Amino acid sequence: MFKLELTDHKTLKSAFESIHKIVDEIVLSADSETLYLRALTRDHIMFVTMELNKTFFDEYQCDEPEQMFLDANEFYKMLKKAKSDDILELTINESGVNIILKGKGTRRFNLTFLDFSYDNPVPPKIECPCNIRISSSLLKEYIDNMSDFSDRLIFQVDQDYFKILTDGQIGTAEIEYMHGENINESVSSQFSIPKLQDMLKSSKFSEECQVNIGNDMPLVLRLDLVTGDGYLEYLLAPRIDESN
Amino acid sequence: MFKLELTDHKTLKSAFESIHKIVDEIVLSADSETLYLRALTRDHIMFVTMELNKTFFDEYQCDEPEQMFLDANEFYKMLKKAKSDDILELTINESGVNIILKGKGTRRFNLTFLDFSYDNPVPPKIECPCNIRISSSLLKEYIDNMSDFSDRLIFQVDQDYFKILTDGQIGTAEIEYMHGENINESVSSQFSIPKLQDMLKSSKFSEECQVNIGNDMPLVLRLDLVTGDGYLEYLLAPRIDESN
Amino acid sequence: MFKLELTDHKTLKSAFESIHKIVDEIVLSADSETLYLRALTRDHIMFVTMELNKTFFDEYQCDEPEQMFLDANEFYKMLKKAKSDDILELTINESGVNIILKGKGTRRFNLTFLDFSYDNPVPPKIECPCNIRISSSLLKEYIDNMSDFSDRLIFQVDQDYFKILTDGQIGTAEIEYMHGENINESVSSQFSIPKLQDMLKSSKFSEECQVNIGNDMPLVLRLDLVTGDGYLEYLLAPRIDESN
Repeated sequence: MFKLELTDHKTLKSAFESIHKIVDEIVLSADSETLYLRALTRDHIMFVTMELNKTFFDEYQCDEPEQMFLDANEFYKMLKKAKSDDILELTINESGVNIILKGKGTRRFNLTFLDFSYDNPVPPKIECPCNIRISSSLLKEYIDNMSDFSDRLIFQVDQDYFKILTDGQIGTAEIEYMHGENINESVSSQFSIPKLQDMLKSSKFSEECQVNIGNDMPLVLRLDLVTGDGYLEYLLAPRIDESN
Repeated sequence: MFKLELTDHKTLKSAFESIHKIVDEIVLSADSETLYLRALTRDHIMFVTMELNKTFFDEYQCDEPEQMFLDANEFYKMLKKAKSDDILELTINESGVNIILKGKGTRRFNLTFLDFSYDNPVPPKIECPCNIRISSSLLKEYIDNMSDFSDRLIFQVDQDYFKILTDGQIGTAEIEYMHGENINESVSSQFSIPKLQDMLKSSKFSEECQVNIGNDMPLVLRLDLVTGDGYLEYLLAPRIDESN
Repeated sequence: MFKLELTDHKTLKSAFESIHKIVDEIVLSADSETLYLRALTRDHIMFVTMELNKTFFDEYQCDEPEQMFLDANEFYKMLKKAKSDDILELTINESGVNIILKGKGTRRFNLTFLDFSYDNPVPPKIECPCNIRISSSLLKEYIDNMSDFSDRLIFQVDQDYFKILTDGQIGTAEIEYMHGENINESVSSQFSIPKLQDMLKSSKFSEECQVNIGNDMPLVLRLDLVTGDGYLEYLLAPRIDESN
């Protein structure tokens, strides 16, 4: 028996606003406690983890572990059909997953499972020295601001500030944000702006996000649900410039 | 003397949101009682009728029958220029129709009559056994939901439900809507999704619509003005699959 | 020392909504009293002047005259980044202009000065006999209404009316607006619709604008800030038809 029921489908949708941009095919997994997804992008530059606990759902029944092989974009399209007062139900039959929207009528969309083999990848453990918290929508805006200048930017953290820097042909850009954390180091890493923009498409998943940075280390961006019922986490490899 | 005056130009505009998508050239006809339009699409698959009674207008003067040969898209563009508190006036001169918008200033647009011959087609009489009523915007949404799966869908009516079904490469979709009508048959017909979408572009013409269905019979979709002052009606030929 | 501070950056942005469409490269000049810009379009058909007095700014310091050679589009992009409660600051360093946005964080964008020589052009003095005032957004809408018909229109002013006329293949359009001014002449000039549309992109600079018209004379369109702190003025050469 597999049946999940959900009124807060906006949060699930917001996770897929980014996921469907990052990966084409996904495995949505479920065990008795959690609905989860782990995916590595084809270019091996980004890793995304989504976990939604049993408690996140209005009803959660998963008697044995399930793996749903799906087209990320098609699944996202189904989530987008939900209206604010619809109840979303997920069930499984032999051929695919049912996305059922219960409102004035009942809309049942069955997405056929894709046929591919897959080992659920294990996310690498990254421990960066500096961790700051910032509004997700603010970070999204800051990164969008940088894209007029270049396709890469530098995240810097020191005692007082979280800084975002870039430069290009038209000039330079520098954003300073007082982080208010207890940090005693200075670190700096460079990342791809389009990849960051893809990640921040899920900025509505949670109001606040955690940014974890080291020296030429991968970025960890984590959005925790304020209820503690789940999270969305991205790992992004740094961009190391060969020259210049 | 031909002069029509109208404050509710939104309704007229909403009719043309669909009409200008369906037919290129129209004949807008008027007699002493009614402004009307009947048009068959070039591919002979759809027929549209619009009737707006004298009572729909704030002023209606039509001393002798008139026929206005117009480009549907250009006429729609003129209607779109009206702002909510404008009064719309239609008059005729030797060269074309005047669409006059009276607001802070007076805007007079004269569209030159097209030069083509035309016999006002008579809509075929269709009597389908099953007739259900449904919110126009809901039906529009249901049909839009189907377009991710296929370019055709099936309308089914039985004792309790109005069902919309489709399937395609990505999976299957089924919408169940409890119709609440007194129906004792089961019928089913298949239609083109893009054609249905074109029709439902006029969903704002009336909050509710009537869907008239039989077995492999044409669909009749009718939107009546709640005031009884007119209606918009579509006939759509069924799509009969040669092979499965 | 050059430092300008501004909370009403919306007005500055609205000026550039038009300017960045009209000219590619601009010289933004400042003296002890005024921030100003004068630019002639490459085709010599339009001239734009912007003047913002010291009093328009929350802080205005300009010890010696400055000239900022900038890409109009890039500068506009920076202005667009400002959020409604940001404070905008303009300063200069050796390489370019700083557009600093102070909100939750501080965003500093430095646009590199362009390298070109330039003599600040002097706008020709035009004295047209007829001057009328009209809502900027209304005039914008009127002009947009004309673009379905043609790429040129005629402005006419007589004792009672300001008229806008055009015609094309699909028909004719005529707008009558009662101007309420004391005018004893009849004048008429023809202008390019796309050029007028470019000008009116700045319709939000001021609620009301002044339209100055003569017989086959350039148009002067002027938007004054209601506070008296500055203005935006356009000169547009008339379109003289060789043949009919």
